Amino acid sequence: MAAAADAVNAELDRLLPRPTGHHARVQEAMRYAIQVGGKRMRPFLILQGAKLFGAPEAQALRAAAAIEMVHTYSLVHDDLPCMDDDDLRRGQPTTHKKFDEATAVLAGDALLTMAFEVAVGPETHPSAEVRCTLAALLARASGSEGMVGGQMMDIVAPENDFGPDEVALLQRMKTGALFEFSCEAGPILGQASDADRARFRAYAHDLGLAFQIADDLIDATSTAEKAGKAVGKDAEAGKATLVSILGVEGARAEALRIAARAAEALAPYGPEADVLRAFPRFLVERDA
Amino acid sequence: MAAAADAVNAELDRLLPRPTGHHARVQEAMRYAIQVGGKRMRPFLILQGAKLFGAPEAQALRAAAAIEMVHTYSLVHDDLPCMDDDDLRRGQPTTHKKFDEATAVLAGDALLTMAFEVAVGPETHPSAEVRCTLAALLARASGSEGMVGGQMMDIVAPENDFGPDEVALLQRMKTGALFEFSCEAGPILGQASDADRARFRAYAHDLGLAFQIADDLIDATSTAEKAGKAVGKDAEAGKATLVSILGVEGARAEALRIAARAAEALAPYGPEADVLRAFPRFLVERDA
Repeated sequence: MAAAADAVNAELDRLLPRPTGHHARVQEAMRYAIQVGGKRMRPFLILQGAKLFGAPEAQALRAAAAIEMVHTYSLVHDDLPCMDDDDLRRGQPTTHKKFDEATAVLAGDALLTMAFEVAVGPETHPSAEVRCTLAALLARASGSEGMVGGQMMDIVAPENDFGPDEVALLQRMKTGALFEFSCEAGPILGQASDADRARFRAYAHDLGLAFQIADDLIDATSTAEKAGKAVGKDAEAGKATLVSILGVEGARAEALRIAARAAEALAPYGPEADVLRAFPRFLVERDA
Repeated sequence: MAAAADAVNAELDRLLPRPTGHHARVQEAMRYAIQVGGKRMRPFLILQGAKLFGAPEAQALRAAAAIEMVHTYSLVHDDLPCMDDDDLRRGQPTTHKKFDEATAVLAGDALLTMAFEVAVGPETHPSAEVRCTLAALLARASGSEGMVGGQMMDIVAPENDFGPDEVALLQRMKTGALFEFSCEAGPILGQASDADRARFRAYAHDLGLAFQIADDLIDATSTAEKAGKAVGKDAEAGKATLVSILGVEGARAEALRIAARAAEALAPYGPEADVLRAFPRFLVERDA
């Protein structure tokens, strides 16, 4: 995973504009937000999937850079005072703290925009049909029926009394949709069969669930220092999560059950899919 | 132009998601922002260009809907308190006033995202290459080297002392880039020659300049009631515009000169391009 992160970081550095001219500030903010980093989980999934289906790494890195731009823009906007109002992200000042709110809004906008420029660029795949498929999937995963819709649900949650089904839908939209894109992008780049894509979607669905429970567990049990962000926020805000519904141990057991089911979805593939099969359990067992 | 507006409004209504579920609010805000309306100038340019080069209207309407989504998102974000802090847009409450700031940020994000989903969708053109070209051009026009970069320049302008060249660059990025896309989209959909595309880019460049001066003239001379928005803001903010540099009459003369040059760029086309040739002058002579 560290190797994948290094490779996608280099690709992002290559793709992002060099800050220049009187508008340099927004490009500095784009680079800052990207460089604050993170584990680059979504790029890792794309690279692994692409490798399994024989797509060149150079193509996978473009798709990986695109998803990381979308993921990063969503963090920059989510951290804004009018949204989650977070001062720290991965232990560093959030983009609007480091720059200012207007620059953070614009940097997020520009990262989202650039993700699509990268996705449809000729270097991403020789087939324009494949590029259009990727870009359309990325848009659906990110838009009002995907990530943005999930963020909207999250905001209206306090006014509603969400049960487990609504919490699951919220999480599937807010974080699951980008995982689904990340898992399906490899088979798409490798022009794999519909059956392969369906298996990777099933895997992604459970991976997203497992990831979200793991994230909620960290919020409930970790320290701010370890997690690199404020913790205990869900309980404080009275947010419905699987942890609040099932308790810490119950939620952990459910996450492990879901991680095993995710691995099962990739059973038809050989040992070269071992890393992907192990990944959901790794996510659940991490503590930061 | 009214017919083009009606057609693109119907297309937008057809494409935008029906608000539903616990995330309905963001989709209501997307529709609200779009329905606040405007003259649909960019769609008009796409439809006219597509017609001239024989592209079906159904395709042009998709590209027109995409550009209007991008234009609308930019207005929603520009109106935010951390940006221009506007309460009114076209005489109606801005999106964050009608809903709230978080919803306005998300609605803008979702409109931008959806523009790319529409651009790369199979109904936009039978050739995926053409769709990728369109989407890439739309991204460049909207991103940190286009509209967003121009908005950044606009924000840092008070700290700098922009001369006419910098003001022209700012305007070319902030509003000119989307006009360039709108003018080039028709020839692209019609798979016209590079020479045709170059003529439409030259036309667009001057059209954008003429539009911006016209907009600055309205700010300097119109009333809020006529303009449907606050006026006199440029002078109040000490913003450098061609009006502040050349005065009202000087700026109007310059705009008319540029409008004539725009028409000249389309001289090789027959009477079916009359409307496009007349359009820049129409823009300059409008008073709202």
